[in-house]
Amino acid sequence: MNLRLELESRKNEVEEYLKNIFDPIVQANLRSAMEHLPNAGGKRLRPICAMLACELAGGRVEEVMPFGVALELIHNFTLVHDDIMDEDDLRRGTPTVHNEFSIPTAINAGNGLHSHAFDIVTRSNCSDATFRRLVREMAVTVRAIGEGQQDDIDFEIRDDVTVEEYFRMIENKTAKIFEMACRGGALISGASEEAVLALGDFGMNFGISFQLSDDHLDVVSLSHEMGKTSKSDLKKNKKTLIIVTAFEKAGPAERKILDRVLGNQSASEKDLDKAAEVLVKLGSVDRARREAERYAERAKRSLDFFSPSPAKAVLKALADYNITRKY
Amino acid sequence: MNLRLELESRKNEVEEYLKNIFDPIVQANLRSAMEHLPNAGGKRLRPICAMLACELAGGRVEEVMPFGVALELIHNFTLVHDDIMDEDDLRRGTPTVHNEFSIPTAINAGNGLHSHAFDIVTRSNCSDATFRRLVREMAVTVRAIGEGQQDDIDFEIRDDVTVEEYFRMIENKTAKIFEMACRGGALISGASEEAVLALGDFGMNFGISFQLSDDHLDVVSLSHEMGKTSKSDLKKNKKTLIIVTAFEKAGPAERKILDRVLGNQSASEKDLDKAAEVLVKLGSVDRARREAERYAERAKRSLDFFSPSPAKAVLKALADYNITRKY
Repeated sequence: MNLRLELESRKNEVEEYLKNIFDPIVQANLRSAMEHLPNAGGKRLRPICAMLACELAGGRVEEVMPFGVALELIHNFTLVHDDIMDEDDLRRGTPTVHNEFSIPTAINAGNGLHSHAFDIVTRSNCSDATFRRLVREMAVTVRAIGEGQQDDIDFEIRDDVTVEEYFRMIENKTAKIFEMACRGGALISGASEEAVLALGDFGMNFGISFQLSDDHLDVVSLSHEMGKTSKSDLKKNKKTLIIVTAFEKAGPAERKILDRVLGNQSASEKDLDKAAEVLVKLGSVDRARREAERYAERAKRSLDFFSPSPAKAVLKALADYNITRKY
Repeated sequence: MNLRLELESRKNEVEEYLKNIFDPIVQANLRSAMEHLPNAGGKRLRPICAMLACELAGGRVEEVMPFGVALELIHNFTLVHDDIMDEDDLRRGTPTVHNEFSIPTAINAGNGLHSHAFDIVTRSNCSDATFRRLVREMAVTVRAIGEGQQDDIDFEIRDDVTVEEYFRMIENKTAKIFEMACRGGALISGASEEAVLALGDFGMNFGISFQLSDDHLDVVSLSHEMGKTSKSDLKKNKKTLIIVTAFEKAGPAERKILDRVLGNQSASEKDLDKAAEVLVKLGSVDRARREAERYAERAKRSLDFFSPSPAKAVLKALADYNITRKY
């Protein structure tokens, strides 16, 4: 099984479905702003998870497309708004929506993607009872993302964020939508409650592992072990697991090195490298990597419920790939 | 029939339903920001319209409450975001959400209200088929509001907005949600398609009349015929029907007087009064008042489909009241 090809073929199906999805938007400027980020690419991991969950649960994959694409729209809406909040200028190699258009238009475009998701999901070919459940779970998922995002905002000015608070934040902000993707795929396929729960567990654990890998990559790239120069978590004073655990262990000298770059948008490369060295020395970088592996293992174990199948193999390979990926 | 008492008793029911509606939001800061505007009051006209439509169509009013309150949440979400876009500091006599909290938190709170509306509506005690239709129409309504809001933003820098474009904007931005309120009330009551259409027509025409009255009040208050000193439409360069029709008729001297205040946040009271006089002289103020009356008449005629009833009398009185209100 070639994971890259498995992901690529499903990604193409998502892109195909996305092609005409903005046709109902009449207002030309709003439509351009709404299309901007979804058209700039992305891994399409959330709809792909929904497709794989549907396949694994024995459903027909074309029936999960509206739901999967609805989650992709929700994901994109949160990115458009996060970029305003974080004052980011670039995303996926292109200008962010508020940078290309304006802040009012970007707020409006994010809202358009948000409500459009609830329109698209009504195309789902499932029972009306399942549909009602999907809407409820989607709304609760968006609320969770908002709660996680609020923690992310609130934590920026706090130095005493606990490991428990960190996990609550990423469960809401990142993992819930993967849980929803997998649960929804199972629900639409008409699977048993046990199958829905098992796939939801996969999504939640995979999502946590995914965020931990992101946190890890952000710092590892700093120590020039990789070709990436993101460093943005440190400069934005984001409370990643790495920072939270480093604060617990750092002595005054180490803390001073960290404080020089945290929340400092103009921190020098040299200072950022020094901070990364401290984070490695304190064991925080390794801790994040180990936690990412632990949650990947958990994710794979969640699938023990199912007998072997091509879709199961792809999901397990996806969990493994996530902890080795370079970007 | 005492309209004030009829509205007041229904408003109290809405406030009662709103009381525990934010309990599911765990993140304390997000919850406070989400509650801020809904708790600051408001006329609750959208849920009241849904209740009256449900009553008129023969439904049980308690069954329309989740839907009506969902629309109130959507209305509040759009206000929270509009205030960010318009950089307004006050709303309903209290600081706007971004002023009281921060712009990121206000964006997030608006999103929370938006998604919460789709959660609350799942509480509706209607058939699953009706529910699917409600969700689709709600999502389309939010999209329409976004399209109207985008026109509002785009029109600020245009001088050639047509009367047709103006009506498209307010139909989307203001009237669609009243149409949805009345349609939803009818749908939940299990009314015939004819009743749904008739009530939808009432909502659309009432909504247009409502916006025209707002436009009218904003300028009339300037000429000191009333106790209100809003003037904000002129200072923000909003393309109201008054401005659009004035631009069509104004000569160079009149245009100069208008241009002194349009889009000028620090325009003097004296200049604003002079501009208002020009708008009266050009007949634009009267035109807006007459159009408001025309749409109120249309709204009332939409109800000809129904035999006389207390709910019908209240809706007709509401249409009449709207064109005489002072704020």
